[in-house]
Amino acid sequence: MSRISPDDIARMDAEDELSSFRDRFHIPDGVTYLDGNSLGCLPRATRERVNDVVAREWGQDLIGSWNSNDWINAPVRIGGKIARLIGAEADEVIVGDSTSINIFKCLGACLQLNPERNILLTETGNFPTDAYMTEGLAAIAPDRIKAGMVDPDEVTGSLDETIAALLLTHSHYKTGRVRDMKAVTAAAHARGVPVIWDLSHSCGAMPVDLNACEADFAVGCGYKYLNGGPGAPAFTFVAKRHQEKVFPALSGWLGHKQPFAFEDSYAPAPGIHRFQCGTPGIIGCAALEVGVDLMLEADMMVLRRKSSALGDLFIQLVEQRCGDFGFEPACPVDARHRGSQVSFHHPQAFAIMQALIARNVIGDFRAPDILRFGFAPLYNSCADVWNAVDVLHDVMTSREWDQSRFRQKAAVT
Amino acid sequence: MSRISPDDIARMDAEDELSSFRDRFHIPDGVTYLDGNSLGCLPRATRERVNDVVAREWGQDLIGSWNSNDWINAPVRIGGKIARLIGAEADEVIVGDSTSINIFKCLGACLQLNPERNILLTETGNFPTDAYMTEGLAAIAPDRIKAGMVDPDEVTGSLDETIAALLLTHSHYKTGRVRDMKAVTAAAHARGVPVIWDLSHSCGAMPVDLNACEADFAVGCGYKYLNGGPGAPAFTFVAKRHQEKVFPALSGWLGHKQPFAFEDSYAPAPGIHRFQCGTPGIIGCAALEVGVDLMLEADMMVLRRKSSALGDLFIQLVEQRCGDFGFEPACPVDARHRGSQVSFHHPQAFAIMQALIARNVIGDFRAPDILRFGFAPLYNSCADVWNAVDVLHDVMTSREWDQSRFRQKAAVT
Repeated sequence: MSRISPDDIARMDAEDELSSFRDRFHIPDGVTYLDGNSLGCLPRATRERVNDVVAREWGQDLIGSWNSNDWINAPVRIGGKIARLIGAEADEVIVGDSTSINIFKCLGACLQLNPERNILLTETGNFPTDAYMTEGLAAIAPDRIKAGMVDPDEVTGSLDETIAALLLTHSHYKTGRVRDMKAVTAAAHARGVPVIWDLSHSCGAMPVDLNACEADFAVGCGYKYLNGGPGAPAFTFVAKRHQEKVFPALSGWLGHKQPFAFEDSYAPAPGIHRFQCGTPGIIGCAALEVGVDLMLEADMMVLRRKSSALGDLFIQLVEQRCGDFGFEPACPVDARHRGSQVSFHHPQAFAIMQALIARNVIGDFRAPDILRFGFAPLYNSCADVWNAVDVLHDVMTSREWDQSRFRQKAAVT
Repeated sequence: MSRISPDDIARMDAEDELSSFRDRFHIPDGVTYLDGNSLGCLPRATRERVNDVVAREWGQDLIGSWNSNDWINAPVRIGGKIARLIGAEADEVIVGDSTSINIFKCLGACLQLNPERNILLTETGNFPTDAYMTEGLAAIAPDRIKAGMVDPDEVTGSLDETIAALLLTHSHYKTGRVRDMKAVTAAAHARGVPVIWDLSHSCGAMPVDLNACEADFAVGCGYKYLNGGPGAPAFTFVAKRHQEKVFPALSGWLGHKQPFAFEDSYAPAPGIHRFQCGTPGIIGCAALEVGVDLMLEADMMVLRRKSSALGDLFIQLVEQRCGDFGFEPACPVDARHRGSQVSFHHPQAFAIMQALIARNVIGDFRAPDILRFGFAPLYNSCADVWNAVDVLHDVMTSREWDQSRFRQKAAVT
């Protein structure tokens, strides 16, 4: 493979069909941000929209905004928009709560669909909150419910009539490995097991077609590729065929069929509405909606193509310029099986990432030894990739990472 | 009792020790807002603070803000401030999720404290989400857990060794009736029952002294008297003596003792931290913190005195000016037993409230026949009370409410 030059990079960026999106975001000067899979960048339109929600909708219109500014429908309105990104119907997705809470809702739903089954199964090495939520739910009724965990390769072989739910991440948070949603779902269904897909690292980064895969449940994060802001509301997908069969575990008043009748007894609202629980955080919803609206302007197939190209370029440049420094890919090298990120093992991963961050190249360290670089195809460019590898090359050549200040306590991100 | 005149009102407002707080809020021109117990007004400082979180902390500092702008500690930092309003220690309160979700956390904790008990008890007519959450939790393991409900007068008489948790509201959302927290808690403890207090209508409106009452658990709302904005994060109080005994039902990754070790198995964080679940909504937290900081500038005893006086004045003026129109108090007339609101029954309550709202006097209708007026002592004045009753008098005298446009569909608030 021929060496890549800065001229090649300039040419590739000039040909980028999505290049106009970068200006729609605030990208801090001098920063190469490859961490949009941890916290997406700020869309420029968000600031004004949030200010409008605060000053006019809350400050001026006050309680009337639940109707006049349609606050009451924000969870289903924004959910309906996210649905278009993940191959769902508008009335199959609702926004609200956190990914963790929404996993709990889906796990609870699976127990209802399969009352004679008792195991909530996930895989080792999954994003921890996924597994943790199975443990908390199991602890409510330890005689009845069990949390189970098997190695990634053993998942499909472990499915039997005891499994009430299979909880998997579509694109792995650490390695970026993408699961074959259709095949895994089919294998699970063959054993009567509903699947909960965690789309946190795929929604907004690659095409997802839940209904084409006959998916049952899914959850996802608002603050990564959807650029909804820190701790943005998450979302929940429930296939229409399951919705009315579920009495929600988190049966809050806004999931009631008549919340303002203030009845003593819970009666679930029709359809996806019953998966709402308490009062939605309206300011957070407003910020999320700006991010989702922006994402909807782009073609998901083009996004995926660019995302794959950025990842391929990163891998190639690391090999070309940092091939002697002991980086081992921790992600699939074949872009078809990789999410919108590239990860490498390195014994000094933590210190190297700290050194990169000190030089304004922002990625993530993930324990125990992984450097993770995310590519948000809406705003990242080939120049970002070049800069990141250029700085990595500097940091490695100069052994800049080998300072005590870079070896200290784990970062919080 | 002598008749109250506009001069009396002016004198009372002139003597109001809290009058300077009103200017710290945005109160829309021409609006008499007696609905701060549904959605508190916008503190003037919130707009700038939220903009700073969005533009600088998120937009500029990005992922580093979890450390550099202390996002990671927002839930315990703000919780520690709320603790000062409710007689708790700083490390007994954590902010996050909704009131409904937090009720679920506390219910789950009670089941852990009392594994041999199985009934989650609340009272009829409680705010619906409280009862609903007991039903959802019970439905997870119907053989093991039951939701129970008794009339308000029968609560203490119903406590026995089957009750795992007693869930009560401190100040009732509809009637404003205040429960004797100390006496009820003591009666419950005598039967081994932990109590969960819903403080949604008391936190920020009256003194609450959880630890003096030996309270076990409490939850409360951020968007009412705390003026945290629509759907603001809620809070959870867990008495220190219980914290380490609980394996949280909602065991999310940020409640793990080492969230960034990304371990496969959940190990609860020390103390109150384990009651955090997913990633906190940072923009919502920032808005809430402004409201809490403002509230902390006021003396809670002075706030309570003013709140009681506003309610007494409202009742007296309704009697004086609207005594012939059939309003029956739906709240305790004795301010010592009443929260920061006044409610009246009226057969035409819905239409009357719609007519008031059309005249910019904002209160709430609560089914089936209640007009509810909340007094936020930080910003409401005696002039607000006078105006509201003045308009009510007009609306009743002219039968302005008796129009079809005011009789239509239920409001969403």
